Amino acid sequence: MRAVMARGGKLACEEIAEPVPGAGQALVKTLCCGICGSDLHALHHFDRMVDNARRAGGGALTNDFDPKAGMVMGHEFCAEVLDYGPGTTPRLKTGTRVVSMPILIGPAGMVSVGYSNVYPGGYGERMVLSEAMLLEVPNGLSDRQAAMTEPFAVGAHAVAKAALDEDAGFLVIGCGPVGLAVIASLKARGFGPVTAADYSPARRAMAERMGADIIVDPATESPHDQWTVMGVARTGAEQMMARMAGQAVKRAIIFECVGVPGVLQALIEVAPPGSQIVVAGVCMQADQIEPAMAITKQLDFRFVLGYTPEEFAGTLGDIAEGRIDVAPVITSAVGLDGVAGAFAALADPEAQVKVVVEPGLA
Amino acid sequence: MRAVMARGGKLACEEIAEPVPGAGQALVKTLCCGICGSDLHALHHFDRMVDNARRAGGGALTNDFDPKAGMVMGHEFCAEVLDYGPGTTPRLKTGTRVVSMPILIGPAGMVSVGYSNVYPGGYGERMVLSEAMLLEVPNGLSDRQAAMTEPFAVGAHAVAKAALDEDAGFLVIGCGPVGLAVIASLKARGFGPVTAADYSPARRAMAERMGADIIVDPATESPHDQWTVMGVARTGAEQMMARMAGQAVKRAIIFECVGVPGVLQALIEVAPPGSQIVVAGVCMQADQIEPAMAITKQLDFRFVLGYTPEEFAGTLGDIAEGRIDVAPVITSAVGLDGVAGAFAALADPEAQVKVVVEPGLA
Repeated sequence: MRAVMARGGKLACEEIAEPVPGAGQALVKTLCCGICGSDLHALHHFDRMVDNARRAGGGALTNDFDPKAGMVMGHEFCAEVLDYGPGTTPRLKTGTRVVSMPILIGPAGMVSVGYSNVYPGGYGERMVLSEAMLLEVPNGLSDRQAAMTEPFAVGAHAVAKAALDEDAGFLVIGCGPVGLAVIASLKARGFGPVTAADYSPARRAMAERMGADIIVDPATESPHDQWTVMGVARTGAEQMMARMAGQAVKRAIIFECVGVPGVLQALIEVAPPGSQIVVAGVCMQADQIEPAMAITKQLDFRFVLGYTPEEFAGTLGDIAEGRIDVAPVITSAVGLDGVAGAFAALADPEAQVKVVVEPGLA
Repeated sequence: MRAVMARGGKLACEEIAEPVPGAGQALVKTLCCGICGSDLHALHHFDRMVDNARRAGGGALTNDFDPKAGMVMGHEFCAEVLDYGPGTTPRLKTGTRVVSMPILIGPAGMVSVGYSNVYPGGYGERMVLSEAMLLEVPNGLSDRQAAMTEPFAVGAHAVAKAALDEDAGFLVIGCGPVGLAVIASLKARGFGPVTAADYSPARRAMAERMGADIIVDPATESPHDQWTVMGVARTGAEQMMARMAGQAVKRAIIFECVGVPGVLQALIEVAPPGSQIVVAGVCMQADQIEPAMAITKQLDFRFVLGYTPEEFAGTLGDIAEGRIDVAPVITSAVGLDGVAGAFAALADPEAQVKVVVEPGLA
């Protein structure tokens, strides 16, 4: 079959062996697969991702993975069931359109579909998936909408990790796909007000379409000037005055969706005391912080990754039932031959947000 | 009156002006005052503490403070009411023994008693305190026991910030006064098992007296080897196996009570995935972390400081009703002339844990 092979920092369309479903596995045809920022990073620095996972104690990335060998990436997919492996008693008939968490139980343990030498991901014509993980696409959602389940589940997870049980003000820093998914999940659950900040005009416009209440260009004003507008006391002195006046003190909840060195310390310096900071942006470099100031302000950092099976299924429901409109974020579609060009185009935040790959496109 | 003046990095017993209670204030006689590790730091680096507080947005430390002028430290005290300022309608009669949070409402706002140029702290014969903050010492507690309310409230706050609503395993890193207070608070609330780690044999012995279930010398074994003993799955793979077997996955809750650079990153590397890390040790230097690994492990860092009025009063109750035995941590008592020597002695963790100052001692 045809697939986009990532090898030695390059992407190339190649003819590769057909994937064969094993016991408990389904063979599926890829209908649509989103390109994730992690894939852009993995193309050049996958060794760093594997090293990080290995030092963190293992996981799906580290099982029998050879970074020197090629891989077919793609983990945000919608697919159609073609066939099943031996010993499977399938719930879903062939022809059913499905989504799945990109996790497969292989003979050597868990494997990340899309980051594996053995199991090709969604940048190819066909994949094998674990039958038990398949979720039928409901309500006539389009392939493209369904493929957005995975990236939007990342936002749902970040919001769930914030453990919201109180009135709060929200700030989302960075309106790439992760930040947009956080905004969508907050608004789908009725939380707000939400301030969204990004240097890119195109991404700020997208944040507005996702439902952000206040949009800020950090080049011209600090997003932290919005705390008062959102009813959050910004300084310790203001919080103390509010408490002494018997008022409830609204908490600041910040979603860090950028992931470059220095953002955490900048937040330590400017975030209101008592802020909860959900760190969803993946910063791969070492970073410096001042713990004493984080202590003085009693900040709470929750580092988050991925999602649970329940959050993944819930996100599919949010999209299917219209609580989240994913359509605006899909800015273009390419065939397999267009993947390398799309990777390049995604470097410019003005040009693209989410590009989807459709192997059926010419 | 006689008081220990801290000025230019030195401590000296001096004759200073009598404090005069203003409106809403009480004049008290200091009976006993604990020496806090923060005072040891403040003697040489108070400018750094003030700078940190100022950059964090103000607070009691920054109100009209002149680091060049002298101050009488001491904020862990038990005292006796001598008199009241004008316009006060006191609840407690003179002669009553009291404790108080070391916060005073002065004309210029909140002031930290013990870190002020104007209001002397507990290393002097007399102080003024806000009448509204006074709590009567109950149940015939000794002066020394009552003076431990403040440092043990720090432990109660750290435990409260962990927001415990689940079965968990606990690790306390560092068994100085903060770590010991955390152990005592965990055990007073029935939480456990608690593993305590410290390089000092004397502090390990103290941790055992505070009720720690497992005591570890990190020089000879990793405290993280105890997770399995405490019923906590240590790796992501172990957690996954437990979940697949339908077992509840116990969370690891770690109290960082050391406060030196490198401890946070060491925890990022070795803590079980999903750990909650309550950072109570105050690291005054910049520190380096790897956010990507914290994300991979989905760690949760809660930086904590101080306590609420409710936690302070609750700790007094814990001591008065025997839920926390503070007596073991008090390793010696000195008069005002002995304070400088006690500061020096506290540098050795084998020699002393908590030294109390009793101005009445010769």
